[in-house]
Amino acid sequence: MVGYAFMGATHSHAWRTVPRVFDLPLVPRMVALAGRNEANARAAADRLGWESVETDWRALVARDDVGLVDIVTPGDSHAEIAIAALEAGKHVLCEKPLANTVAEAEAMTAAAERAAERGVRAMVGFSYRRVPAITFARDLVQSGRLGTIHHVRAQYLQDWIVDPEFPLVWRLQKEHAGSGSLGDLGAHIIDMAQFITGDRITGVSGLTETFVKERPLPTASSGLSASGSSERGQVTVDDAALFLARFGGGAVGSFEATRFASGRKNAMRIEINGSAGSIAFDFESMNELQFHDHSIDADSAGFRRILVTEPTHPYMDAWWPPGHIIGYEHTFIHQARDLLTDIATSQAPAPSFADGLQVQRVLEAVERSASGDSSWTAVDAAAG
Amino acid sequence: MVGYAFMGATHSHAWRTVPRVFDLPLVPRMVALAGRNEANARAAADRLGWESVETDWRALVARDDVGLVDIVTPGDSHAEIAIAALEAGKHVLCEKPLANTVAEAEAMTAAAERAAERGVRAMVGFSYRRVPAITFARDLVQSGRLGTIHHVRAQYLQDWIVDPEFPLVWRLQKEHAGSGSLGDLGAHIIDMAQFITGDRITGVSGLTETFVKERPLPTASSGLSASGSSERGQVTVDDAALFLARFGGGAVGSFEATRFASGRKNAMRIEINGSAGSIAFDFESMNELQFHDHSIDADSAGFRRILVTEPTHPYMDAWWPPGHIIGYEHTFIHQARDLLTDIATSQAPAPSFADGLQVQRVLEAVERSASGDSSWTAVDAAAG
Amino acid sequence: MVGYAFMGATHSHAWRTVPRVFDLPLVPRMVALAGRNEANARAAADRLGWESVETDWRALVARDDVGLVDIVTPGDSHAEIAIAALEAGKHVLCEKPLANTVAEAEAMTAAAERAAERGVRAMVGFSYRRVPAITFARDLVQSGRLGTIHHVRAQYLQDWIVDPEFPLVWRLQKEHAGSGSLGDLGAHIIDMAQFITGDRITGVSGLTETFVKERPLPTASSGLSASGSSERGQVTVDDAALFLARFGGGAVGSFEATRFASGRKNAMRIEINGSAGSIAFDFESMNELQFHDHSIDADSAGFRRILVTEPTHPYMDAWWPPGHIIGYEHTFIHQARDLLTDIATSQAPAPSFADGLQVQRVLEAVERSASGDSSWTAVDAAAG
Amino acid sequence: MVGYAFMGATHSHAWRTVPRVFDLPLVPRMVALAGRNEANARAAADRLGWESVETDWRALVARDDVGLVDIVTPGDSHAEIAIAALEAGKHVLCEKPLANTVAEAEAMTAAAERAAERGVRAMVGFSYRRVPAITFARDLVQSGRLGTIHHVRAQYLQDWIVDPEFPLVWRLQKEHAGSGSLGDLGAHIIDMAQFITGDRITGVSGLTETFVKERPLPTASSGLSASGSSERGQVTVDDAALFLARFGGGAVGSFEATRFASGRKNAMRIEINGSAGSIAFDFESMNELQFHDHSIDADSAGFRRILVTEPTHPYMDAWWPPGHIIGYEHTFIHQARDLLTDIATSQAPAPSFADGLQVQRVLEAVERSASGDSSWTAVDAAAG
Repeated sequence: MVGYAFMGATHSHAWRTVPRVFDLPLVPRMVALAGRNEANARAAADRLGWESVETDWRALVARDDVGLVDIVTPGDSHAEIAIAALEAGKHVLCEKPLANTVAEAEAMTAAAERAAERGVRAMVGFSYRRVPAITFARDLVQSGRLGTIHHVRAQYLQDWIVDPEFPLVWRLQKEHAGSGSLGDLGAHIIDMAQFITGDRITGVSGLTETFVKERPLPTASSGLSASGSSERGQVTVDDAALFLARFGGGAVGSFEATRFASGRKNAMRIEINGSAGSIAFDFESMNELQFHDHSIDADSAGFRRILVTEPTHPYMDAWWPPGHIIGYEHTFIHQARDLLTDIATSQAPAPSFADGLQVQRVLEAVERSASGDSSWTAVDAAAG
Repeated sequence: MVGYAFMGATHSHAWRTVPRVFDLPLVPRMVALAGRNEANARAAADRLGWESVETDWRALVARDDVGLVDIVTPGDSHAEIAIAALEAGKHVLCEKPLANTVAEAEAMTAAAERAAERGVRAMVGFSYRRVPAITFARDLVQSGRLGTIHHVRAQYLQDWIVDPEFPLVWRLQKEHAGSGSLGDLGAHIIDMAQFITGDRITGVSGLTETFVKERPLPTASSGLSASGSSERGQVTVDDAALFLARFGGGAVGSFEATRFASGRKNAMRIEINGSAGSIAFDFESMNELQFHDHSIDADSAGFRRILVTEPTHPYMDAWWPPGHIIGYEHTFIHQARDLLTDIATSQAPAPSFADGLQVQRVLEAVERSASGDSSWTAVDAAAG
Repeated sequence: MVGYAFMGATHSHAWRTVPRVFDLPLVPRMVALAGRNEANARAAADRLGWESVETDWRALVARDDVGLVDIVTPGDSHAEIAIAALEAGKHVLCEKPLANTVAEAEAMTAAAERAAERGVRAMVGFSYRRVPAITFARDLVQSGRLGTIHHVRAQYLQDWIVDPEFPLVWRLQKEHAGSGSLGDLGAHIIDMAQFITGDRITGVSGLTETFVKERPLPTASSGLSASGSSERGQVTVDDAALFLARFGGGAVGSFEATRFASGRKNAMRIEINGSAGSIAFDFESMNELQFHDHSIDADSAGFRRILVTEPTHPYMDAWWPPGHIIGYEHTFIHQARDLLTDIATSQAPAPSFADGLQVQRVLEAVERSASGDSSWTAVDAAAG
Repeated sequence: MVGYAFMGATHSHAWRTVPRVFDLPLVPRMVALAGRNEANARAAADRLGWESVETDWRALVARDDVGLVDIVTPGDSHAEIAIAALEAGKHVLCEKPLANTVAEAEAMTAAAERAAERGVRAMVGFSYRRVPAITFARDLVQSGRLGTIHHVRAQYLQDWIVDPEFPLVWRLQKEHAGSGSLGDLGAHIIDMAQFITGDRITGVSGLTETFVKERPLPTASSGLSASGSSERGQVTVDDAALFLARFGGGAVGSFEATRFASGRKNAMRIEINGSAGSIAFDFESMNELQFHDHSIDADSAGFRRILVTEPTHPYMDAWWPPGHIIGYEHTFIHQARDLLTDIATSQAPAPSFADGLQVQRVLEAVERSASGDSSWTAVDAAAG
């Protein structure tokens, strides 16, 4: 594993737990963790359960006892590490977003396609696909229970920077983060919408906004000093991003990503209306799926709350009895299970790097539309 | 009252009931109902409680014993009747939408302004403002409980034409209905959003879609015949309309109106996020307002379900004890109460015809944007 | 109508509105209102829409132009008025509870049975049966959609006397009110449970509690004085009543009525579990019924929120389009419609006085059990 | 650890994960697992992560490298193992229920008290106390946010044996299971109610019911054979248990445990009403707590949905960002953290064996009342 911050903890928990919960054809060994600062990396490895550390990711990629490289570093380093690992014949799991630019994502996708010819696998970490309710929603669509899809309505709402005195952390600086809510949150709802519907966004009209344009520099917010314009800095990413979309199959969509929805902590909500039924989901209640079956007589029809904890639900036969819920980190355990199974059975994992690239293309189209006059912008389908 | 269809029933119920519930400075008499077919008008008058009938609205407008003309006819007749009534010195209540075109709405607004100088009052019937939860939400915004508004997210979702065999009724024909979901449903959420926030939409980017482009002619759907392409007709209005918006005060908005949201019967939903709090509302549960107070400590904060049935809530001191809910038609009773009070106290009613005109301008801007390439379109503020 | 307080307003609204909404075989005339104080009665009659007043209910009962007597006075006067009216050949609608004692209820039931032989009808006003969601729940049970009933779980929760400084109003004094939450709230949930299940309670184990045993006398609470033990009085009714029950058909039940459930304004909740399905209802959201169909595959089963506003739902074809809700007072309009229809078609109305008597017997059994050691107490079935 | 079935998996996951999530003064080693069948025990140990196996729990208790014995066997073996372990100076974690009889629980409690004098700790595994929302509810009560408690309303609803053809598994046989829903589910809600309120049940009136009195023997249900009355057996435990209760502090309670609530999978629900506020909880949505603050002005008061995922909530600083939920097994991780912390800091863990004994006494009182005529039965407070 390269990197060991927040995502490092969830991934480590997944590798550690997956063989104890699922019957797997391959059992992972947590061989080495790479980080530039040896002491910090060592402490992280001890805590998270890795056998050894490397201070250079290149050394980790070169090790013979490493078969899979898990990349949980910031987005600007993904391309270099992933391409090197694939070329060294290591399978790769790369956190989302695939890259900070379409060009990098294209290079990674090309590398993944070359590697695939040699049986080397690559997956991008849109772990929310592995929420059982989401996989089950996809199954409902695939089996025709929703009919023809007319509407997708997706929001990812958070509120952690509503306070204008919240400091100018790196996530609010374009040079470090690439974009704001659009790339961080919007990428998730784009992937979710396309995954569940089995369809792709073909064009968009976008709008972005930065509500708080200057914020205290992190030191200013620490309370050590309190005055002077020199201690504020420009917010260079979007606080909120909204866009309208059309899908290849004829559906229309409304998307919204924001860090300014006071009271919404992690409300990734998606509602899909089809000719035969509808689903609605909120990540804050991730074990529940609302489902409306339009074929039922009107007087007894209505959205039903399916508690997605039955043994017949995706992934759930490995967990607890009905009604006993799972949490956020389980999505990473499911992701690990799927990737290990794909590697063992020589199948191409999904979402592929090409899938990750396509999400980047949608994000780029939104940015282009929003930076102009919101006029309709086709999603470049070159690598779709 | 001119007209006596669905809206005629709700308005009649309101005029009949309002003096028995509220203490009013003026008590209405239900003098006459106008309708072209005398027998039908007579039957409606008997059922709805009107003293007499007229077969020509001009005769009704001319009567000395009529002080207020209530217009519940289709939109294309509003301008002529309303202007004539105002010029005859009658107060006017005109159902929404104010008119089918901006030009008509401008003429009506001019007539209303001339009439106002003579103390003659005009109101447009956006009755949803009179849902106590909505008025209360407006009060929360006005008193600063939401702080600076960042987001408006409004949807009006219905599903009555999801079935492609649903016939081509007049509401699906542009020559009769003007537009589809946009004018019928979109007008409501535009007015609601502007009413609650106290702010105005300044520009939009729109998209419209007609999912089912041909439908059986009404006779075909009646079962009398079943074959032949000649028996289908073109749907000439939108099935769904979506738009992004900016408000004068800096908020951004996402709006959606559709008749294809299977399982949603009358889901007029609005969620507003501000720097100090948020509200959420769904018309299907119209006695409830969700409210988040961002000033509460994070560990005990959350959206609270306010049951808007306390005597201190708008309009509710006239109704039942706390926890006993009211229904759809009460909004019309409240509207009648407000209009009669304004007339008696020589105040300008709201929403005025100018308010109705401004909603028409927003609708027109959405249509223009959607018929082009969704590029940003300013709302003409000439009469705003 | 005899009486004109809170219930007088809802009943008057019903008589006034019912012929304008439903097609009826009989159209009511609101002939006369009886009240002891002529000025007050006159003002009420004017406001509520009655043609004349009587200061003695006996005079009203004697009038030739009165065919139906509607009794909305306190419970201790029901027996005398109802029996006199029935003997005078007038149909009777009597508010719940039927009487304050079982003995009075027995006399009223006997009078009603004698009157029925002459075609004179009597109904007790358990209007909550006319909530469309409740009637629909009864229909679901009758059609077998719930299978064999195992559990009934009913609560009527209010909170208007949580504050110990709330004054000692007449409802808190046994000599005036008969009982506290048990008779006021418990009677409703007993009738509802028996109505929906079509079954009867055969035995109970009860518990009652008075949390605040002394309260300020009403004058003390008015702010005119503030000191002295002489200004407090004993609360002589129950604040809360709980009981367990068995039904004739084998189900078990848990019932709770309280005025001390802070935050619950009018939460009459009932949940019924059967071998084939379950329903759940909350009067605060009275247009919704939660329904679980146990025959659906486990992975797509769940409680569905039925919005009981379809034209195929009970009473709803007379009202608004789907998704437009109704309110508390509509239950009285439906009650008036049912009673008038029964009278016109010579049918026995339900709930009958015998039904009201049986509810009194259950209440009495609870009181007996609670005043002893909660031991099991059979419901006397003499008149059942 | 002694035993390795369902609870063995959750406990193993907890021991394995707790040091990687929390900073602990003691880091557990998973030394040995005991099970009678060596092959099965070995397979379980490999899967669950234990270093070695023992085929006799006595050998495990005797090992010098074992400091803590975790007992996850059926209830009838708890007393013997726990007492032996405590006498051997090992700390003990014993799954609930503490024992199958009050006598056994008393012996265990005495052993735990003797052990405590030597610094040896014992805890009973009511892990639901470690749901952050429940601990937080307890904190709200302790800090006075609910005021004086008036009502406790608790239900534990499941539906896994609604089908009368579900076989007669050991849990439905008194000789193996002790009791049915009462001990299995009722024990949880008794502990929860007493934990949150900080108060104890002093008396009860109970009722139990077995709806399906005969069931197919397990072989019959396995499909190997299908006919003959000889293949059915008696259900000897309760399907449902209901009771009313009084608490020492004056509150009244209504409790219900059932396996016949169709559509409810694991609905452990508790609602508590106090003079200053109320809380409501449902284990199916275990990251949410509904809270009503009665001190807020009535017009903006209501139950608020607190998402109990803030870093300031109990246990949650170790987990994910706000809005990212946790699941069922986290309660066991929290339990392990608390026990290890108590051991390291020489504190008495809670719930103690005495707490477990007191729950047994309540269960026994309910059984005695239900087997008689439901008359009021005091909870024996000898060891309380």
